[in-house]
Amino acid sequence: MSDLPKSVDIHEEGPREGFQIEPGPISTADKIRLIEALAETGLKHIQACSFVNPKIVPGWADAEAVIEGFKPKPGVEYTALWFNGRGLDRALAFADKLTNIGSISLSASDGFSQKNLNRSHADNLVAMRKQTALHIEKGVPVSRISVMASFGCNFQGDIEPAQVVRTIADGMAIADEYEAKIEVVSMADTMGWATPDRIERVLGDVRSRWPEMTLALHLHNTRGLAVANAHSGLKMGVRRFDATVGGLGGCPFAGQLGAAGNICTEELALLCEEMGIETGIDLDRLIEVGRMAEEIVGHVLPSELIHAGSLNAFRRKVA
Amino acid sequence: MSDLPKSVDIHEEGPREGFQIEPGPISTADKIRLIEALAETGLKHIQACSFVNPKIVPGWADAEAVIEGFKPKPGVEYTALWFNGRGLDRALAFADKLTNIGSISLSASDGFSQKNLNRSHADNLVAMRKQTALHIEKGVPVSRISVMASFGCNFQGDIEPAQVVRTIADGMAIADEYEAKIEVVSMADTMGWATPDRIERVLGDVRSRWPEMTLALHLHNTRGLAVANAHSGLKMGVRRFDATVGGLGGCPFAGQLGAAGNICTEELALLCEEMGIETGIDLDRLIEVGRMAEEIVGHVLPSELIHAGSLNAFRRKVA
Repeated sequence: MSDLPKSVDIHEEGPREGFQIEPGPISTADKIRLIEALAETGLKHIQACSFVNPKIVPGWADAEAVIEGFKPKPGVEYTALWFNGRGLDRALAFADKLTNIGSISLSASDGFSQKNLNRSHADNLVAMRKQTALHIEKGVPVSRISVMASFGCNFQGDIEPAQVVRTIADGMAIADEYEAKIEVVSMADTMGWATPDRIERVLGDVRSRWPEMTLALHLHNTRGLAVANAHSGLKMGVRRFDATVGGLGGCPFAGQLGAAGNICTEELALLCEEMGIETGIDLDRLIEVGRMAEEIVGHVLPSELIHAGSLNAFRRKVA
Repeated sequence: MSDLPKSVDIHEEGPREGFQIEPGPISTADKIRLIEALAETGLKHIQACSFVNPKIVPGWADAEAVIEGFKPKPGVEYTALWFNGRGLDRALAFADKLTNIGSISLSASDGFSQKNLNRSHADNLVAMRKQTALHIEKGVPVSRISVMASFGCNFQGDIEPAQVVRTIADGMAIADEYEAKIEVVSMADTMGWATPDRIERVLGDVRSRWPEMTLALHLHNTRGLAVANAHSGLKMGVRRFDATVGGLGGCPFAGQLGAAGNICTEELALLCEEMGIETGIDLDRLIEVGRMAEEIVGHVLPSELIHAGSLNAFRRKVA
């Protein structure tokens, strides 16, 4: 009865998520150092930067310098994030180094759409139509639907699984309209509402509707449940996850909402490894990179594993 | 097919675990303040102090003053920890305030026995016989077997479930010898080796051998998997857990082995609450106490939930 995948793809988003939120200026050289170190761990997908307005996200004012500066490792896919045509053009300027794929990005919560995007779900569908058209016009494939707030929302409360299915269907309709072939549907626990049971229910409903689709999870550890949620996702057959090394992306100030960041790459990798699921990652090397990330940001990161060390390190010691 | 319990008993060990490890001196008044605040959250079991040699654990040199000082709340059970006859006598001096119950404390790993207790498993069995006799002589019931390193060991590596069963059987033999009725078998993930699968296998074997026994889990979050492990335990029918508010008990220095402490009481309570399992805890109040604990120790605690706030707080806001 096991739906457990044989292997998982972990998409590392630490550089992009981490450096947009850190208050201290992180040098371009340190960003490049982290990206290059991550590529040596066996990770095959690294989101390297965000092409956003530097007035809004000053931490990524040096996006061009970072992408120009790092030495790509063959076999590793580097991506960037953008939200509009200007950002897309900046990414396309590095078509030699970046794998540029478009997303239809929606929110299962209208309340979150309003607060975060400053437009209703209906208005966002209009915007996503326009963006999909633009991507296709520029030769960028649109192969992913991502749904924010798939498990609950600070501004709207609980989200029914049927609402997630409806949101994905809205995205599929846009894809159909532009003959875009969706290959991945990613569900994000943007505000940390997921629980293992909720993961099961939402993914169960989505899987029933689109049985052949690759499902991905973008989990946050806002309330400490991210690893338990990933475990539930693995049992539902999810074989693609976003994660950040060290748990980068959290807010470094105690007492603030959303203090924790994404699920830690190395804790997810440990879970998979101990379940016999291949990650392709050298966990001890990744733990070293987590410690490097901590040194770069200059404060303790949320990952417990980077402080404790891997189980295999101890197994080797006692062998 | 669900083995899910209807309710769980969470035993709060924050004061005892937390204050023995903090480097800064914590005032007696602050210890009392935390114990009294915890009792107002709905928690029914609070381990309030450790009667240990103050030369070894200076953080508990004021154990007597703390136990004398706090005002007990009716319906709440307060306990203490001790390791020898001297400690037991100190606890018995507060028989009016403390619920004193003896444990047969063993390690599933001989390597850990040697390193932590400075004696082999065989020698420890001799010591536990002596201690059980002493407890019974002093009228203290011995109703618990606890097994350290039940899921793996830094000094010995993986631990087979059969080894845990054998260790419990050794404890049962001692109990039989002294006609002590064991009511709880507690398995501790002392060094953070547990994974959800390992929890299932160990608890499955223990449950097969002693189907009527109440099983308890003492989980550490050493590698970030504690909540996932607790979820696995709940699915196996475990209805008694140890935990510490805020994740107290961790090492406050980054880069040191064992940086994380116990599973956070409030994250475990959130998981249970969202699964429909009763805890008796007012989670928002407990989160406030976690913040108080953070203020008392003077540094950020590992709990993510105390920084994010409960889901119900957001549900109420949007209702």
